[in-house]
Amino acid sequence: MSAIEFWFDFASAYGYFASLSIDDLGARHDRAVMWRPFMLGVAFKATGARGLSGTPIKGDYARRDWARLARLMDVPFNLPANHPFTALAASRAFYWIERQNPSAAVAFAKAVFRGYYGDGQEVARPEVVADVAASIGLERAAVLAGLGAPEIKVHFTAITEAAVAKGVFGSPFFIVDGEPFWGADRMPMLEQWLERDGW
Amino acid sequence: MSAIEFWFDFASAYGYFASLSIDDLGARHDRAVMWRPFMLGVAFKATGARGLSGTPIKGDYARRDWARLARLMDVPFNLPANHPFTALAASRAFYWIERQNPSAAVAFAKAVFRGYYGDGQEVARPEVVADVAASIGLERAAVLAGLGAPEIKVHFTAITEAAVAKGVFGSPFFIVDGEPFWGADRMPMLEQWLERDGW
Repeated sequence: MSAIEFWFDFASAYGYFASLSIDDLGARHDRAVMWRPFMLGVAFKATGARGLSGTPIKGDYARRDWARLARLMDVPFNLPANHPFTALAASRAFYWIERQNPSAAVAFAKAVFRGYYGDGQEVARPEVVADVAASIGLERAAVLAGLGAPEIKVHFTAITEAAVAKGVFGSPFFIVDGEPFWGADRMPMLEQWLERDGW
Repeated sequence: MSAIEFWFDFASAYGYFASLSIDDLGARHDRAVMWRPFMLGVAFKATGARGLSGTPIKGDYARRDWARLARLMDVPFNLPANHPFTALAASRAFYWIERQNPSAAVAFAKAVFRGYYGDGQEVARPEVVADVAASIGLERAAVLAGLGAPEIKVHFTAITEAAVAKGVFGSPFFIVDGEPFWGADRMPMLEQWLERDGW
Protein backbone atom coordinates (compact mmCIF):
# COMPACT_ATOMS: atom_id res chain seq x y z
CA MET A 1 0.00 0.00 0.00
CA SER A 2 1.25 3.44 -0.83
CA ALA A 3 2.15 6.06 1.76
CA ILE A 4 0.06 9.10 2.56
CA GLU A 5 1.80 12.13 1.09
CA PHE A 6 1.46 14.99 3.57
CA TRP A 7 2.26 18.29 1.82
CA PHE A 8 2.53 21.41 3.94
CA ASP A 9 4.24 24.76 4.36
CA PHE A 10 5.80 25.37 7.77
CA ALA A 11 4.18 28.81 7.79
CA SER A 12 0.69 27.32 7.36
CA ALA A 13 -1.35 27.23 10.56
CA TYR A 14 -3.67 24.59 9.12
CA GLY A 15 -0.54 22.63 8.23
CA TYR A 16 0.47 22.82 11.89
CA PHE A 17 -2.89 21.52 13.08
CA ALA A 18 -2.74 18.67 10.56
CA SER A 19 0.80 17.81 11.63
CA LEU A 20 -0.44 17.02 15.12
CA SER A 21 -2.60 14.09 14.04
CA ILE A 22 -1.52 12.85 10.61
CA ASP A 23 0.88 10.22 11.94
CA ASP A 24 -1.83 8.74 14.16
CA LEU A 25 -4.23 8.70 11.22
CA GLY A 26 -1.69 6.86 9.09
CA ALA A 27 -0.93 4.38 11.88
CA ARG A 28 -4.64 3.54 12.26
CA HIS A 29 -4.61 2.36 8.66
CA ASP A 30 -1.12 0.89 8.45
CA ARG A 31 -0.03 3.62 6.10
CA ALA A 32 3.31 5.35 6.27
CA VAL A 33 3.15 9.12 6.12
CA MET A 34 5.56 10.92 3.84
CA TRP A 35 6.12 14.42 5.23
CA ARG A 36 6.62 16.87 2.40
CA PRO A 37 7.24 20.55 3.16
CA PHE A 38 7.01 22.75 0.09
CA MET A 39 6.78 26.46 -0.77
CA LEU A 40 3.09 27.31 -0.75
CA GLY A 41 3.87 30.69 -2.30
CA VAL A 42 5.04 28.95 -5.48
CA ALA A 43 1.72 27.10 -5.71
CA PHE A 44 -0.10 30.39 -5.15
CA LYS A 45 1.62 31.80 -8.22
CA ALA A 46 0.20 28.91 -10.25
CA THR A 47 -3.37 29.39 -9.03
CA GLY A 48 -3.35 33.16 -8.54
CA ALA A 49 -4.34 32.68 -4.90
CA ARG A 50 -3.11 34.78 -1.99
CA GLY A 51 -2.17 33.77 1.52
CA LEU A 52 -5.05 33.79 4.00
CA SER A 53 -3.47 36.35 6.29
CA GLY A 54 -3.21 38.92 3.54
CA THR A 55 -6.73 38.42 2.21
CA PRO A 56 -9.37 40.91 3.42
CA ILE A 57 -12.21 39.43 5.52
CA LYS A 58 -10.96 35.87 4.98
CA GLY A 59 -7.80 36.62 6.97
CA ASP A 60 -9.86 37.75 9.97
CA TYR A 61 -11.95 34.60 9.74
CA ALA A 62 -8.84 32.43 9.53
CA ARG A 63 -7.28 33.96 12.64
CA ARG A 64 -10.51 33.37 14.56
CA ASP A 65 -10.74 29.84 13.20
CA TRP A 66 -7.15 28.95 14.17
CA ALA A 67 -7.75 30.13 17.72
CA ARG A 68 -10.94 28.11 18.15
CA LEU A 69 -9.36 25.05 16.51
CA ALA A 70 -6.51 25.24 19.01
CA ARG A 71 -9.00 25.46 21.89
CA LEU A 72 -10.98 22.54 20.49
CA MET A 73 -7.87 20.41 20.00
CA ASP A 74 -6.35 21.66 23.25
CA VAL A 75 -2.99 22.35 21.64
CA PRO A 76 -0.58 25.29 21.95
CA PHE A 77 -1.18 28.06 19.46
CA ASN A 78 0.27 31.55 19.53
CA LEU A 79 0.24 33.30 16.21
CA PRO A 80 3.66 34.99 15.93
CA ALA A 81 3.78 38.66 14.93
CA ASN A 82 5.80 37.80 11.81
CA HIS A 83 3.20 35.30 10.51
CA PRO A 84 3.29 34.22 7.74
CA PHE A 85 7.02 33.74 7.37
CA THR A 86 9.03 32.29 4.51
CA ALA A 87 10.01 28.81 5.56
CA LEU A 88 12.87 28.33 3.15
CA ALA A 89 15.54 27.60 5.77
CA ALA A 90 13.41 25.15 7.74
CA SER A 91 12.28 23.35 4.58
CA ARG A 92 15.79 23.02 3.22
CA ALA A 93 17.00 21.79 6.61
CA PHE A 94 14.20 19.19 6.56
CA TYR A 95 15.37 17.74 3.26
CA TRP A 96 19.02 17.82 4.28
CA ILE A 97 18.17 15.92 7.47
CA GLU A 98 15.93 13.52 5.56
CA ARG A 99 18.91 12.47 3.44
CA GLN A 100 20.77 11.44 6.58
CA ASN A 101 17.84 10.08 8.58
CA PRO A 102 14.20 10.20 7.43
CA SER A 103 12.65 9.70 10.88
CA ALA A 104 14.81 12.48 12.34
CA ALA A 105 13.44 14.76 9.61
CA VAL A 106 9.88 14.14 10.83
CA ALA A 107 10.90 14.79 14.42
CA PHE A 108 12.58 17.98 13.23
CA ALA A 109 9.44 19.10 11.35
CA LYS A 110 7.35 18.62 14.49
CA ALA A 111 9.88 20.61 16.49
CA VAL A 112 9.79 23.44 13.93
CA PHE A 113 5.99 23.64 14.12
CA ARG A 114 6.05 23.51 17.91
CA GLY A 115 8.81 26.11 18.05
CA TYR A 116 6.97 28.50 15.79
CA TYR A 117 3.33 28.10 16.84
CA GLY A 118 3.92 27.00 20.39
CA ASP A 119 7.00 28.86 21.55
CA GLY A 120 7.21 31.82 19.18
CA GLN A 121 10.67 30.93 17.93
CA GLU A 122 11.91 32.87 14.89
CA VAL A 123 12.23 29.85 12.65
CA ALA A 124 12.55 32.05 9.57
CA ARG A 125 16.22 32.46 10.57
CA PRO A 126 18.72 29.71 9.64
CA GLU A 127 20.42 30.05 13.06
CA VAL A 128 17.15 29.39 14.86
CA VAL A 129 16.40 26.47 12.56
CA ALA A 130 19.75 25.01 13.53
CA ASP A 131 18.89 25.55 17.21
CA VAL A 132 15.65 23.62 16.72
CA ALA A 133 17.58 20.79 15.08
CA ALA A 134 20.05 20.77 17.98
CA SER A 135 17.15 20.57 20.45
CA ILE A 136 16.26 17.13 19.07
CA GLY A 137 19.84 15.91 19.15
CA LEU A 138 21.09 16.79 15.68
CA GLU A 139 24.44 18.44 15.14
CA ARG A 140 23.83 22.17 14.96
CA ALA A 141 26.74 23.13 12.71
CA ALA A 142 26.10 20.29 10.29
CA VAL A 143 22.45 21.29 9.87
CA LEU A 144 23.37 24.94 9.40
CA ALA A 145 25.84 24.01 6.67
CA GLY A 146 23.45 21.48 5.16
CA LEU A 147 20.50 23.84 4.76
CA GLY A 148 22.74 26.20 2.80
CA ALA A 149 24.21 23.55 0.52
CA PRO A 150 23.62 24.23 -3.19
CA GLU A 151 22.41 20.69 -3.89
CA ILE A 152 19.78 21.00 -1.15
CA LYS A 153 18.52 24.26 -2.63
CA VAL A 154 18.18 22.56 -6.00
CA HIS A 155 16.51 19.54 -4.42
CA PHE A 156 13.96 21.65 -2.54
CA THR A 157 13.11 23.70 -5.62
CA ALA A 158 12.51 20.45 -7.52
CA ILE A 159 10.30 19.12 -4.70
CA THR A 160 8.13 22.24 -4.79
CA GLU A 161 7.88 22.12 -8.58
CA ALA A 162 6.86 18.47 -8.38
CA ALA A 163 4.17 19.36 -5.85
CA VAL A 164 2.64 22.00 -8.08
CA ALA A 165 2.90 19.68 -11.09
CA LYS A 166 0.87 17.04 -9.28
CA GLY A 167 -1.83 19.56 -8.35
CA VAL A 168 -0.89 20.51 -4.80
CA PHE A 169 -2.21 24.05 -4.33
CA GLY A 170 -2.80 24.45 -0.58
CA SER A 171 -1.51 23.46 2.85
CA PRO A 172 -2.09 20.92 4.18
CA PHE A 173 -2.68 18.76 1.14
CA PHE A 174 -2.80 14.96 1.19
CA ILE A 175 -2.47 12.45 -1.61
CA VAL A 176 -3.07 8.76 -1.12
CA ASP A 177 -3.33 6.18 -3.88
CA GLY A 178 -3.48 9.10 -6.29
CA GLU A 179 -6.48 10.70 -4.55
CA PRO A 180 -6.05 14.35 -3.43
CA PHE A 181 -7.49 15.86 -0.25
CA TRP A 182 -7.08 19.56 0.51
CA GLY A 183 -7.31 20.98 3.99
CA ALA A 184 -7.02 19.96 7.61
CA ASP A 185 -10.82 19.73 7.77
CA ARG A 186 -10.74 17.04 5.11
CA MET A 187 -8.79 14.60 7.25
CA PRO A 188 -12.01 12.80 8.28
CA MET A 189 -12.81 12.28 4.59
CA LEU A 190 -9.27 11.06 3.94
CA GLU A 191 -9.77 8.57 6.75
CA GLN A 192 -13.10 7.42 5.31
CA TRP A 193 -11.35 6.93 1.97
CA LEU A 194 -8.79 4.66 3.61
CA GLU A 195 -11.45 2.74 5.52
CA ARG A 196 -13.49 2.02 2.42
CA ASP A 197 -10.63 1.85 -0.05
CA GLY A 198 -12.32 4.68 -1.95
CA TRP A 199 -15.89 4.92 -3.18
CA MET B 1 -31.93 30.77 20.84
CA SER B 2 -30.96 32.40 17.59
CA ALA B 3 -31.41 30.81 14.20
CA ILE B 4 -28.61 29.36 12.11
CA GLU B 5 -27.97 31.74 9.23
CA PHE B 6 -27.28 29.68 6.12
CA TRP B 7 -25.67 31.86 3.45
CA PHE B 8 -25.21 30.41 -0.01
CA ASP B 9 -25.10 31.16 -3.71
CA PHE B 10 -27.36 28.97 -5.86
CA ALA B 11 -24.44 28.49 -8.25
CA SER B 12 -22.24 27.06 -5.49
CA ALA B 13 -21.89 23.29 -5.58
CA TYR B 14 -20.77 23.20 -1.95
CA GLY B 15 -23.85 25.30 -1.17
CA TYR B 16 -25.95 22.60 -2.81
CA PHE B 17 -24.37 19.84 -0.74
CA ALA B 18 -24.89 21.86 2.45
CA SER B 19 -28.52 22.56 1.53
CA LEU B 20 -29.26 18.84 1.65
CA SER B 21 -28.54 18.49 5.36
CA ILE B 22 -28.65 21.90 7.05
CA ASP B 23 -32.33 21.66 8.02
CA ASP B 24 -31.74 18.29 9.70
CA LEU B 25 -28.74 19.71 11.53
CA GLY B 26 -30.83 22.63 12.79
CA ALA B 27 -33.66 20.33 13.84
CA ARG B 28 -31.29 18.15 15.89
CA HIS B 29 -30.50 21.22 18.00
CA ASP B 30 -33.89 22.95 17.99
CA ARG B 31 -32.51 25.75 15.90
CA ALA B 32 -34.40 27.35 13.05
CA VAL B 33 -32.41 27.73 9.83
CA MET B 34 -32.59 31.04 8.02
CA TRP B 35 -31.88 30.39 4.34
CA ARG B 36 -30.01 33.35 2.85
CA PRO B 37 -29.04 33.27 -0.83
CA PHE B 38 -26.61 36.05 -1.77
CA MET B 39 -24.33 36.99 -4.64
CA LEU B 40 -21.01 35.30 -3.98
CA GLY B 41 -19.43 37.33 -6.77
CA VAL B 42 -19.96 40.52 -4.75
CA ALA B 43 -18.12 38.97 -1.80
CA PHE B 44 -15.33 37.89 -4.15
CA LYS B 45 -14.85 41.53 -5.12
CA ALA B 46 -14.31 42.38 -1.44
CA THR B 47 -11.73 39.64 -0.86
CA GLY B 48 -10.15 39.55 -4.29
CA ALA B 49 -11.00 35.85 -4.58
CA ARG B 50 -12.07 34.08 -7.74
CA GLY B 51 -14.64 31.37 -8.28
CA LEU B 52 -13.32 27.84 -7.93
CA SER B 53 -14.21 26.80 -11.47
CA GLY B 54 -12.14 29.56 -12.99
CA THR B 55 -9.07 28.99 -10.82
CA PRO B 56 -6.27 26.90 -12.33
CA ILE B 57 -5.53 23.57 -10.59
CA LYS B 58 -8.02 24.33 -7.78
CA GLY B 59 -10.93 24.16 -10.24
CA ASP B 60 -9.91 20.65 -11.33
CA TYR B 61 -9.68 19.58 -7.71
CA ALA B 62 -13.11 21.05 -6.93
CA ARG B 63 -14.78 19.20 -9.80
CA ARG B 64 -13.27 15.95 -8.62
CA ASP B 65 -14.25 16.71 -5.03
CA TRP B 66 -17.86 17.50 -5.93
CA ALA B 67 -18.22 14.22 -7.78
CA ARG B 68 -16.82 12.15 -4.92
CA LEU B 69 -18.90 14.07 -2.36
CA ALA B 70 -22.02 13.27 -4.37
CA ARG B 71 -21.05 9.59 -4.47
CA LEU B 72 -20.35 9.60 -0.72
CA MET B 73 -23.64 11.34 0.10
CA ASP B 74 -25.49 9.31 -2.55
CA VAL B 75 -27.19 12.39 -3.97
CA PRO B 76 -27.81 13.52 -7.56
CA PHE B 77 -25.04 15.65 -9.02
CA ASN B 78 -24.56 16.59 -12.63
CA LEU B 79 -22.40 19.63 -13.17
CA PRO B 80 -24.19 21.65 -15.87
CA ALA B 81 -22.15 22.90 -18.83
CA ASN B 82 -22.95 26.52 -17.93
CA HIS B 83 -21.60 26.20 -14.38
CA PRO B 84 -21.13 28.56 -12.64
CA PHE B 85 -24.15 30.65 -13.54
CA THR B 86 -25.34 33.98 -12.18
CA ALA B 87 -28.19 33.21 -9.85
CA LEU B 88 -29.75 36.65 -9.82
CA ALA B 89 -33.21 35.58 -10.99
CA ALA B 90 -33.45 32.61 -8.61
CA SER B 91 -32.22 34.68 -5.66
CA ARG B 92 -34.62 37.53 -6.31
CA ALA B 93 -37.47 35.04 -6.71
CA PHE B 94 -36.48 33.51 -3.37
CA TYR B 95 -36.83 36.83 -1.54
CA TRP B 96 -40.07 37.69 -3.32
CA ILE B 97 -41.53 34.33 -2.30
CA GLU B 98 -40.20 34.73 1.24
CA ARG B 99 -42.24 37.90 1.64
CA GLN B 100 -45.38 35.96 0.88
CA ASN B 101 -44.50 32.69 2.58
CA PRO B 102 -41.12 31.96 4.24
CA SER B 103 -41.47 28.16 4.24
CA ALA B 104 -42.40 28.18 0.56
CA ALA B 105 -39.18 30.09 -0.09
CA VAL B 106 -37.13 27.28 1.46
CA ALA B 107 -39.02 24.68 -0.58
CA PHE B 108 -38.34 26.79 -3.66
CA ALA B 109 -34.62 27.04 -2.86
CA LYS B 110 -34.39 23.26 -2.56
CA ALA B 111 -36.22 22.90 -5.89
CA VAL B 112 -33.79 25.33 -7.56
CA PHE B 113 -30.76 23.38 -6.34
CA ARG B 114 -32.34 20.08 -7.37
CA GLY B 115 -33.35 21.50 -10.73
CA TYR B 116 -29.86 22.80 -11.44
CA TYR B 117 -27.59 20.11 -10.01
CA GLY B 118 -29.96 17.19 -10.33
CA ASP B 119 -31.91 17.81 -13.50
CA GLY B 120 -29.74 20.26 -15.44
CA GLN B 121 -32.45 22.93 -15.64
CA GLU B 122 -31.33 26.34 -16.91
CA VAL B 123 -32.16 28.18 -13.73
CA ALA B 124 -30.16 31.20 -14.85
CA ARG B 125 -33.26 32.16 -16.91
CA PRO B 126 -36.20 33.91 -15.20
CA GLU B 127 -38.69 31.77 -17.17
CA VAL B 128 -37.12 28.57 -15.88
CA VAL B 129 -37.03 29.96 -12.34
CA ALA B 130 -40.76 30.59 -12.66
CA ASP B 131 -41.22 27.00 -13.89
CA VAL B 132 -39.41 25.72 -10.82
CA ALA B 133 -41.67 27.82 -8.60
CA ALA B 134 -44.73 26.47 -10.41
CA SER B 135 -43.47 22.91 -9.84
CA ILE B 136 -43.89 23.39 -6.09
CA GLY B 137 -47.33 24.94 -6.39
CA LEU B 138 -46.56 28.64 -6.63
CA GLU B 139 -48.22 30.84 -9.21
CA ARG B 140 -45.87 31.05 -12.17
CA ALA B 141 -46.85 34.50 -13.47
CA ALA B 142 -46.78 36.06 -10.01
CA VAL B 143 -43.27 34.76 -9.34
CA LEU B 144 -42.06 35.93 -12.75
CA ALA B 145 -43.41 39.41 -12.08
CA GLY B 146 -42.15 39.37 -8.50
CA LEU B 147 -38.55 38.51 -9.30
CA GLY B 148 -38.43 41.50 -11.63
CA ALA B 149 -39.98 43.96 -9.23
CA PRO B 150 -37.74 46.98 -8.46
CA GLU B 151 -38.23 46.71 -4.71
CA ILE B 152 -37.05 43.09 -4.77
CA LYS B 153 -33.95 44.04 -6.71
CA VAL B 154 -33.16 46.69 -4.09
CA HIS B 155 -33.93 44.24 -1.28
CA PHE B 156 -31.62 41.57 -2.69
CA THR B 157 -28.79 44.03 -3.23
CA ALA B 158 -29.14 45.12 0.39
CA ILE B 159 -29.12 41.48 1.57
CA THR B 160 -25.87 40.79 -0.28
CA GLU B 161 -24.28 43.98 1.03
CA ALA B 162 -25.29 43.01 4.55
CA ALA B 163 -23.72 39.57 4.06
CA VAL B 164 -20.38 41.03 3.00
CA ALA B 165 -20.54 43.60 5.82
CA LYS B 166 -20.87 40.80 8.38
CA GLY B 167 -17.91 38.91 6.92
CA VAL B 168 -19.56 36.34 4.67
CA PHE B 169 -17.00 35.58 1.95
CA GLY B 170 -17.80 32.08 0.72
CA SER B 171 -20.60 29.62 0.07
CA PRO B 172 -21.88 27.96 2.12
CA PHE B 173 -21.27 30.13 5.15
CA PHE B 174 -23.02 29.71 8.49
CA ILE B 175 -23.41 32.10 11.40
CA VAL B 176 -24.90 31.06 14.71
CA ASP B 177 -24.85 33.12 17.90
CA GLY B 178 -22.40 35.42 16.10
CA GLU B 179 -19.95 32.59 15.34
CA PRO B 180 -18.96 32.14 11.67
CA PHE B 181 -18.33 28.80 9.94
CA TRP B 182 -17.17 28.65 6.34
CA GLY B 183 -17.65 25.62 4.13
CA ALA B 184 -19.75 22.51 3.84
CA ASP B 185 -16.94 20.54 5.45
CA ARG B 186 -17.25 22.66 8.58
CA MET B 187 -20.79 21.51 9.32
CA PRO B 188 -19.48 18.91 11.82
CA MET B 189 -17.70 21.71 13.70
CA LEU B 190 -20.84 23.87 13.58
CA GLU B 191 -22.71 20.96 15.10
CA GLN B 192 -20.07 20.52 17.84
CA TRP B 193 -20.40 24.24 18.57
CA LEU B 194 -24.15 23.84 19.08
CA GLU B 195 -23.70 20.73 21.21
CA ARG B 196 -21.24 22.41 23.56
CA ASP B 197 -22.64 25.94 23.33
CA GLY B 198 -19.24 27.02 22.07
CA TRP B 199 -15.82 26.41 23.59
